[in-house]
Amino acid sequence: MAKIAILGYGNLGRGVECAVKQAPDMELVAVFTRRDPLTVKIQTAGVPVLNVSEMEAWKDKVDVLIICGGSATDLPVLTPKYASMFNVIDSFDTHAKIPQHFAAVDAAAKGANKIAMISVGWDPGMFSLNRVYAQSILPEGKDYTFWGKGVSQGHSDAVRRIKGVKNAKQYTCPVESALEAVRSGSMPELTTRQKHTRLVYVVAEEGADKAYIENAIKTMPNYFDEYDTTVNFISEEEFNKNHSGLAHGGFVIRTGKTGMNKEHTHVIEYSLKLDSNPEFTTSVLVAYARAALRMKANGQTGCKTVLDVPPAYLSTLSDEDLRAHCL
Amino acid sequence: MAKIAILGYGNLGRGVECAVKQAPDMELVAVFTRRDPLTVKIQTAGVPVLNVSEMEAWKDKVDVLIICGGSATDLPVLTPKYASMFNVIDSFDTHAKIPQHFAAVDAAAKGANKIAMISVGWDPGMFSLNRVYAQSILPEGKDYTFWGKGVSQGHSDAVRRIKGVKNAKQYTCPVESALEAVRSGSMPELTTRQKHTRLVYVVAEEGADKAYIENAIKTMPNYFDEYDTTVNFISEEEFNKNHSGLAHGGFVIRTGKTGMNKEHTHVIEYSLKLDSNPEFTTSVLVAYARAALRMKANGQTGCKTVLDVPPAYLSTLSDEDLRAHCL
Repeated sequence: MAKIAILGYGNLGRGVECAVKQAPDMELVAVFTRRDPLTVKIQTAGVPVLNVSEMEAWKDKVDVLIICGGSATDLPVLTPKYASMFNVIDSFDTHAKIPQHFAAVDAAAKGANKIAMISVGWDPGMFSLNRVYAQSILPEGKDYTFWGKGVSQGHSDAVRRIKGVKNAKQYTCPVESALEAVRSGSMPELTTRQKHTRLVYVVAEEGADKAYIENAIKTMPNYFDEYDTTVNFISEEEFNKNHSGLAHGGFVIRTGKTGMNKEHTHVIEYSLKLDSNPEFTTSVLVAYARAALRMKANGQTGCKTVLDVPPAYLSTLSDEDLRAHCL
Repeated sequence: MAKIAILGYGNLGRGVECAVKQAPDMELVAVFTRRDPLTVKIQTAGVPVLNVSEMEAWKDKVDVLIICGGSATDLPVLTPKYASMFNVIDSFDTHAKIPQHFAAVDAAAKGANKIAMISVGWDPGMFSLNRVYAQSILPEGKDYTFWGKGVSQGHSDAVRRIKGVKNAKQYTCPVESALEAVRSGSMPELTTRQKHTRLVYVVAEEGADKAYIENAIKTMPNYFDEYDTTVNFISEEEFNKNHSGLAHGGFVIRTGKTGMNKEHTHVIEYSLKLDSNPEFTTSVLVAYARAALRMKANGQTGCKTVLDVPPAYLSTLSDEDLRAHCL
């Protein structure tokens, strides 16, 4: 049994706990938190909750540490730090900063003879894999990634910072006609506005200026100004009843041409429809924790991504069973 | 430039030729045929067509030999035979016989310090990958593979062997309501009949007994008796005009549950819509030929499948570029 520890017990930490429970070859051995451990109640009996200050004492008692934190400020610090003590895995998802995160984690892991895996989840993660597979198979083509319908935490946070907003949730929605145009193989050029719309549900504070809020949302640079955005004001009751979920999903589609005269068109489509974004993300993390241990057992160290992992390493089945039953 | 040779110049061989043309890091150096080379005209200028009797003399002039043959009788002989002379890759697709094919090819390749890759294409191939990824991520779930709408060569051949049939084409069609039931996450148990229908277009010989032909098709054991089959008799003109293509495709869908009480459902779907089955299959073969050479350069020998290949090895991009632009 691989010994798994969790650092950080929020939505992602709880998702890892659930996913480890489904893994026949893994056991949860510890949950580390920056909070007072007495205030953190986990769902797995008999597993200690410990303050991060105790982590170093656990470095020989954990096979993989799954680091559950935010990409903005947590992971750039935590993953390199703990890669020098543990084999680690994270879900770092700031695409533009992956090269620098990789470099920091790679240096730390190599120095400690550990393996580290970053940016594991669905985007980056399963969507990245599908982009690379499809680009490699159909070099004469074009790919498109669509997200949603799903909750964007970053955009929801941005709306909540507007004066007069009590609570808010933002959904990113793919435009159906754009999806259809892509699937047709016509390889359209699509602007940001043509690919996705944004749908916002706002609970306003009593007496707040709703016209001001709506305008502040729709004109917010980077977050909303390039999109067609719909703002709905709703009651707190409706918000809590209908908008507390964390569903998400999306599509990676590549179309390409083959033949001596590029006369044949092919469409490769990968899609996800997820009831719980954090639980799916952590299900991917746990499968890659298994793979990380196999790569380490084969002598590999340093930082890896999903692109470096042979698919067979993710499975609990033997290579023989995979060839006989899944190939 | 990796030096690629083709063995066998039918639909697959022609597809490899097209795919190599799109690969900036590969060049076609020879086409080997069992026929008289003078009767084989290829589309790439300056590349020699040679009889298979000359292959041994080329063993140090080829980096990967792509073996294009049928799975029933060609590949079980050819792939082990040439794995002792070349790095090889094939599209062996008799799922039930993969373990024995693997064993024969593995022994030959290891003995000659070569790498061999078998069962590359889309099923087995990309569909296998997607089954393994999805099963590993969502262990509490169920997956389904649907094929079509597309031409089944084996079934078309079987119909052509019936007395009075001049020509025939069989399409395998997924049942839309079954696809929808699967996508709903209800994890239905589906019989063979519920998943696919078969659609047959027949050109009958003059004076043939059409009722006999239709009955012979619909009751044919293994091929048709477990399916709802529609038989259409058409003219030779209509057949040649509308049924000469080799389109295919299909779907791999897994739904699974996460959460402490399995309260969340997720749907992972991978689908292909292909104008040309052989050209897509060979596009996959050529990408895996690139990967095979990288694995060989890393010291790996013996038989491999798509499940053993790190996705990054398929790409012409460097690891740095992949992390910066595709992850």
